[in-house]
Amino acid sequence: MNYLHEQRIKENTLLGRLQEYAASDAYPFHMPGHKRNKLEEEKLGNFPEPFSIDITEIYGFDDLHHPEGILKASMEKTAEIYGAGESRYLVNGSSCGILAAVSGCTERGGRILISRNCHKSVYHAIVLNHLKSAYVYPQVIDELGINGGILPEDVEKQLARYPDTQAVLVVSPTYDGVVSDIREIARVVHQRNIPLIVDEAHGAHFSFGKKGEYPASALSEGADVVIQSLHKTLPSLTQTAVIHLNQSRCLGQKKLDRIKWYLSVYQTSSPSYLFMASIERCVLYMNGQGRERLSWLFNQTEAFREEAKKLSLLQVPGKEWIGKKGIFDWDSSKLILHLGKTGKSGLWLGDKLRKEFHLELEMYAPRYGLALTSLWDRQEGFDRLLQAMQAVDHELFLELGNGQQLSGRERETDLQEKFFFLQEKERQVMEIGEAVELPAEDKILEQCLGRISAEYVYLYPPGIPCLVPGEKIDQEIIRSIQEYQKAGFSVHGLNGKHGEFLPVICETSL
Amino acid sequence: MNYLHEQRIKENTLLGRLQEYAASDAYPFHMPGHKRNKLEEEKLGNFPEPFSIDITEIYGFDDLHHPEGILKASMEKTAEIYGAGESRYLVNGSSCGILAAVSGCTERGGRILISRNCHKSVYHAIVLNHLKSAYVYPQVIDELGINGGILPEDVEKQLARYPDTQAVLVVSPTYDGVVSDIREIARVVHQRNIPLIVDEAHGAHFSFGKKGEYPASALSEGADVVIQSLHKTLPSLTQTAVIHLNQSRCLGQKKLDRIKWYLSVYQTSSPSYLFMASIERCVLYMNGQGRERLSWLFNQTEAFREEAKKLSLLQVPGKEWIGKKGIFDWDSSKLILHLGKTGKSGLWLGDKLRKEFHLELEMYAPRYGLALTSLWDRQEGFDRLLQAMQAVDHELFLELGNGQQLSGRERETDLQEKFFFLQEKERQVMEIGEAVELPAEDKILEQCLGRISAEYVYLYPPGIPCLVPGEKIDQEIIRSIQEYQKAGFSVHGLNGKHGEFLPVICETSL
Repeated sequence: MNYLHEQRIKENTLLGRLQEYAASDAYPFHMPGHKRNKLEEEKLGNFPEPFSIDITEIYGFDDLHHPEGILKASMEKTAEIYGAGESRYLVNGSSCGILAAVSGCTERGGRILISRNCHKSVYHAIVLNHLKSAYVYPQVIDELGINGGILPEDVEKQLARYPDTQAVLVVSPTYDGVVSDIREIARVVHQRNIPLIVDEAHGAHFSFGKKGEYPASALSEGADVVIQSLHKTLPSLTQTAVIHLNQSRCLGQKKLDRIKWYLSVYQTSSPSYLFMASIERCVLYMNGQGRERLSWLFNQTEAFREEAKKLSLLQVPGKEWIGKKGIFDWDSSKLILHLGKTGKSGLWLGDKLRKEFHLELEMYAPRYGLALTSLWDRQEGFDRLLQAMQAVDHELFLELGNGQQLSGRERETDLQEKFFFLQEKERQVMEIGEAVELPAEDKILEQCLGRISAEYVYLYPPGIPCLVPGEKIDQEIIRSIQEYQKAGFSVHGLNGKHGEFLPVICETSL
Repeated sequence: MNYLHEQRIKENTLLGRLQEYAASDAYPFHMPGHKRNKLEEEKLGNFPEPFSIDITEIYGFDDLHHPEGILKASMEKTAEIYGAGESRYLVNGSSCGILAAVSGCTERGGRILISRNCHKSVYHAIVLNHLKSAYVYPQVIDELGINGGILPEDVEKQLARYPDTQAVLVVSPTYDGVVSDIREIARVVHQRNIPLIVDEAHGAHFSFGKKGEYPASALSEGADVVIQSLHKTLPSLTQTAVIHLNQSRCLGQKKLDRIKWYLSVYQTSSPSYLFMASIERCVLYMNGQGRERLSWLFNQTEAFREEAKKLSLLQVPGKEWIGKKGIFDWDSSKLILHLGKTGKSGLWLGDKLRKEFHLELEMYAPRYGLALTSLWDRQEGFDRLLQAMQAVDHELFLELGNGQQLSGRERETDLQEKFFFLQEKERQVMEIGEAVELPAEDKILEQCLGRISAEYVYLYPPGIPCLVPGEKIDQEIIRSIQEYQKAGFSVHGLNGKHGEFLPVICETSL
């Protein structure tokens, strides 16, 4: 086999492609939070070639599912650092922590109240446990085309309406960085003697941030169960996460034990030591140098927002939104690169940044692109992103002027706005678990008006379903899906070559 | 911070301990199958420091849960290599594949027939889906103190007894390497128009082995769903596995779709690209050089068994067992280091091999230690293991003579034998899912006679429950647990500082 042929094989493999990408000048404004960098301080050590340290539960290396030795000690240290009653390492992402938390805090067939902007794993947990679901909707920020926070009074209202609720789960921060008032939500929830689970997957750095720079973690605000993805915002390998359990009046011993049992169900019996070592190193690092580095990041992102204020058309919203629309606090590390009134979409911006500037964003929405920054970003990245934003802004200005004249036909994204954020609407006509068991058929999207969805419909990322099984399909949903598809977004949940079919429940089975 | 203090921190971390272990002369006769080695041929590439290639689902890198690009192509290539209808990469171990296969092939509250020596993940799936369980027991090999194979006629008998069975799941090979007659079992199962799931976690290498050297994979023997752990016997990172789906008359489109849906439930929405690259490289390697290397391994293990025949007291059983006790075939790569009539336990042997010879085994049973070999073992390992066995055998001979005189008091392990293999006994008095929901109390083991277990009791490894929730506790079980504990084994499922309490169902709730 000659050299060229060997080269070709290597490049065509996944490993080859990953190495090729690593060697390119593409700069990651996306997960994971380690940004493919090594640890700068040598104290905690860097990782060697992974196979050399990949072992199984041999003598002296404990067992994640029955921790009695070094893993127990490591997780206790982690709990101490976080100020949690108990912390457990997760090797199957936040997803398994959410499945375990919901399964452990509810009884089969019981009811859970969730914020409607939850990750699909929450909906999976509802189906697995045959739960009845009730929703609290996030606020809507029309001006930005994003969702705001969850209002404690909305939680209270729904708890009064559904007194059989066994647990409440809210997501905070959102993908975009919106933080809700967890302390007040916890107070309202605890009045009912039930536990509050917070999906803090996108806020694992909060616990280590300085007050005034970063929001408080749900852990210190009274949540009973908090799930954090370490890989999203911190320097840890993809698929690593942690769950914190605060034994309290509302999360009794029985629920606690059930959660731990479910953790051993939803995670492999052969957990990766590579992952566990990555989690531990991340936590130890964050408890030291990581704190200073988070302050450095705060200064970087705030300076970036200051510079962005000078742009003609593009915007980077920030803390000025705190106090409005249920936004209790705002995570400065998430940069919403907003297209304002330019009529351009986030996909357009993302394509441009990738092709012309070799910058890769995390997510594309109709009116903005989302750049995730982390404490392991480099100065180079912020410089390149600012220069790119200035160049794009200038180009748009030459094309459109200052944008004041944009209206009507030019604002192509008007319809899409209606889709992207969730608006309170009573679409649910049956429980999700019931809907997924009924016979379904594929229908051309246009013909689905009035039918009941048999599927989740969502964009990934963020993976938040806009339509869930058991919800009635109205004209607004149909139009929004079409607009999304027209704008080039890949909408999950639809079938057919062009996503033209939506699975709906057979009418004969109703 | 001075150098010594830094060193101390590094050593106390999990990463430090793993690196220390990697640098030691300890030789691994345990998982993972890569044995901490690098790939010798450079063609497929070696892994760099893992953080540099750890990415998320960015542009061009597809999405495991909605594969349309390079992951789809990669999995299709894998299916082609294996001759499977469809193959899916698993990043949460075989465990998630088993959960998905069982959940997808059964209806809630339905019935599944399983071989009683299944991994605990099968029992978890039964609980999650409220299934009624029926068992087929493996044969018993008294002479060795291990379980044999599953008889097709036993499967047939149980299917006649439980005609409401919706799926059958058997484990083959066992941890010890015993392979059942899957072709005949598949025939019997398919007569009922239901699918056969085979947990082939310990036999991922079968598909690449030469006929006459290794058993056939269940995949070519008619199983509908086959789950293989890549990390156990092949060169892939811990926690990686693959599930093969053969769409057939008995595994219709609906069940197939359900399995795939459950795969997206039981696996994180942020799967590791490191893992996926490891899986792909492993499969490509096995399809090339790996095949030759498996033949090399076969010659090594057979030569080892030949040499072991010269030992006075220790034994290494092999293919001579084929055809007896339901043993349809035998995986030569698993070395049962049997203590024969010496009265010594596997724990004793394991301790000795670790401390005096720096050899680490995979599992310790009352009468043997299990050494897992793989195609990435080195000549050095076999030489060291043989020398160690010869030395231990010599020492035992000096202590005991040729062992013929051993009887009575000296045969300390007599009672333990009764525990370690499963014997057909109708202990089940209620369904598992029912039992786990009932109130339980901790009772001192001695007082549990006649009570119903609320827990799984098992050794890990192998993680096969000897007692499951809903089974009635008899004197044999109590005595066996005590003997195990006395012999130094850690028995999972019991509570208390010394494992003296067993959770049983409260009598008032019956």
